[in-house]
Amino acid sequence: MITINENYLKLQASYLFSDIAKRVASFQEKNPDREVIKLGIGDVTRALPKACIDAFHKAVDEMAVDASFRGYGPEQGYAFLREAIAKNDFHARGANISADEIFVSDGAKCDTGNIQELFSQDITIAIPDPVYPVYLDTNVMAGRTLNFEDGRFKGIVYLDSTKENNFVPALPKEPVDLIYLCFPNNPTGSTITKEELKTWVDYARANKALILFDAAYEAFIQDESLPKTIYEIEGAKEVAIEFRSFSKSGGFTGTRCAFTVVPKECVAYDTTGKVHSVHALWNRRHCTKFNGVSYPVQKAAEALYSEEGKVQAKELVDYYLKNAELICTTMEELGFTYDGGKNSPYVWIWGNMDSWEFFDMLLNKAGVVCTPGAGFGKCGNGYIRISAFNSYENVVKAMQRIREAFGK
Amino acid sequence: MITINENYLKLQASYLFSDIAKRVASFQEKNPDREVIKLGIGDVTRALPKACIDAFHKAVDEMAVDASFRGYGPEQGYAFLREAIAKNDFHARGANISADEIFVSDGAKCDTGNIQELFSQDITIAIPDPVYPVYLDTNVMAGRTLNFEDGRFKGIVYLDSTKENNFVPALPKEPVDLIYLCFPNNPTGSTITKEELKTWVDYARANKALILFDAAYEAFIQDESLPKTIYEIEGAKEVAIEFRSFSKSGGFTGTRCAFTVVPKECVAYDTTGKVHSVHALWNRRHCTKFNGVSYPVQKAAEALYSEEGKVQAKELVDYYLKNAELICTTMEELGFTYDGGKNSPYVWIWGNMDSWEFFDMLLNKAGVVCTPGAGFGKCGNGYIRISAFNSYENVVKAMQRIREAFGK
Repeated sequence: MITINENYLKLQASYLFSDIAKRVASFQEKNPDREVIKLGIGDVTRALPKACIDAFHKAVDEMAVDASFRGYGPEQGYAFLREAIAKNDFHARGANISADEIFVSDGAKCDTGNIQELFSQDITIAIPDPVYPVYLDTNVMAGRTLNFEDGRFKGIVYLDSTKENNFVPALPKEPVDLIYLCFPNNPTGSTITKEELKTWVDYARANKALILFDAAYEAFIQDESLPKTIYEIEGAKEVAIEFRSFSKSGGFTGTRCAFTVVPKECVAYDTTGKVHSVHALWNRRHCTKFNGVSYPVQKAAEALYSEEGKVQAKELVDYYLKNAELICTTMEELGFTYDGGKNSPYVWIWGNMDSWEFFDMLLNKAGVVCTPGAGFGKCGNGYIRISAFNSYENVVKAMQRIREAFGK
Repeated sequence: MITINENYLKLQASYLFSDIAKRVASFQEKNPDREVIKLGIGDVTRALPKACIDAFHKAVDEMAVDASFRGYGPEQGYAFLREAIAKNDFHARGANISADEIFVSDGAKCDTGNIQELFSQDITIAIPDPVYPVYLDTNVMAGRTLNFEDGRFKGIVYLDSTKENNFVPALPKEPVDLIYLCFPNNPTGSTITKEELKTWVDYARANKALILFDAAYEAFIQDESLPKTIYEIEGAKEVAIEFRSFSKSGGFTGTRCAFTVVPKECVAYDTTGKVHSVHALWNRRHCTKFNGVSYPVQKAAEALYSEEGKVQAKELVDYYLKNAELICTTMEELGFTYDGGKNSPYVWIWGNMDSWEFFDMLLNKAGVVCTPGAGFGKCGNGYIRISAFNSYENVVKAMQRIREAFGK
């Protein structure tokens, strides 16, 4: 008899986006003439940079001719892209990452979801709250959690991220083996300083732990004192894997390209204490279960590192940051407190309401859709996330409406 | 302490392609002027069909303009592609598969590798020998195998595919829960009749087993009496998942698009015997660990179903089949026995040599590279695989040289 992986039955159904859709539909029914402005979803809205489009077309043309046609590429990605990444994203920041430590993939979601396969079943895992749900769900599927009680899984060490700690969690009190961190954070938009990040790297080195550092929003960092990669921190290569994506930096959410950095120094252990290379393990997984990213997509991604590409990608990021700034100033005017929005496309806002009250108020009074923070974890309750991913015109209109709703 | 998934340590290193590369390099050193013709790797060599190129360009242009730009698409694939697949690949064959039973992905390698996650650790798995190594390796990684002894993993039921059974394995004698089948087969090029396939479907229904049917080479089937999809067999929807790919049918090995069919009737059980929908489980996995295929790539794949696209894809397949025919007639002339090559791009050849002797002879006498069958499993020893994926001119030259090597 074919039996299922019963860990899947432990997964909590997420009603977040369907609940949002229901409330929006009900609002629209009552207000058929009211245009709703959606600042809820973390998806880009602007066209790909011209440099990417040109490179994309050129690569498609190569695929049209036998002589330049490309079949299977290296599973890890083409050298042209891996080298451009190493040079621009790491060497330029003083981080000594080589091209063969970079694994190109079709998404940071896949990579952050798949990475846990390399590790044993009985490790202790630390996951921030609130956070992107993939880290937790993929560990639930793998059987690393116990019962779900009072909104949380037993067997997971949650790293509370609250206004009290500026959304940068404290080191865990109990020993943990695998630590997920995400900065700039989704959903809070908070950042981490080099000094704070160093305490995590030092913890991992002292405790033989491993950090999974999700830096998918790195491109939004404007403050030059903040780390753009964890490898700016001394000793991080031994204890950290970094996830990056072109989704937000180049508008690639529908084009699909990302990469994961697994330094060769990065180690894990077997039960006898013997040291193993995490690079070798990930390489084996990547080659066994993945067949590389589409060649034209890799060429389009490479173009983000050309001179024009860099300028155009910066324009894209600046565009969304201008939206974020407008959201921040509006929230300030209205007396709300917030984090994010400076080095992040997300603004994380709190007042004296629970997440859904706040959501309903913005929807009903202003026709603006945000995301209730409670959807990202227990610590997200009381907060909402407003995303800067929309046109400037829509953000202006949305903020104007919110101001009016509050009588300003 | 971060500990590893020790199942990875059980994986057998594959030296197949590095051994081939070494022998070819050594031959080239001794014969610097001799051009080596490679008929080893199962990778396409011809340009994408024009219909795909046109659709690809058009979709890239859509990504260049805000108004038509696409961000995240549905994880399961766009409706335009899922509907074209359902209509052309299934309805046209009398198989009642609906668009929402089709999950578009970036590769059949990923899907055939990932599918095992849905099932429990202690199921019994049947895997053909010889076969594509991903089925076995992904189960080794998941911890479903015991010791490796005498070239095989304990805990796996191997389905011997030999000249004695025409490379269609017999039903297992012991009960099994999950069965991998691949037809037209890689590497043997053999096909399965509807009657034979029905015995497997009936077995699965009678034993509450599940069939994973890899039909990545379906486009090469010329004999209209052969099943092009397992869903041509009555009752298959309850007990079979099918994997398909545009890699070989449309030349997409470097472009990356494939799909998996999980019918809604398809069921598995929990340990209490309760029935669960495999469709729901796969959907949950797909949405949690995957973010959809690149939009322009999906548009390029859709174009394979346009009138011009169908004609051009057929030309592509016919081109390789003409190569295969030439390989077959040459082998016949030389007195070798073979299977495949009729409804498959692979010709599986045997004589009175072991795989590597045969390989060395072709390399040293004719400067032609094939793949030793032993690389695909214990039952592959004594065989070689010659691939039709090359230019017709190269295949003509290679066969001429092999003929000369044998004094013909």
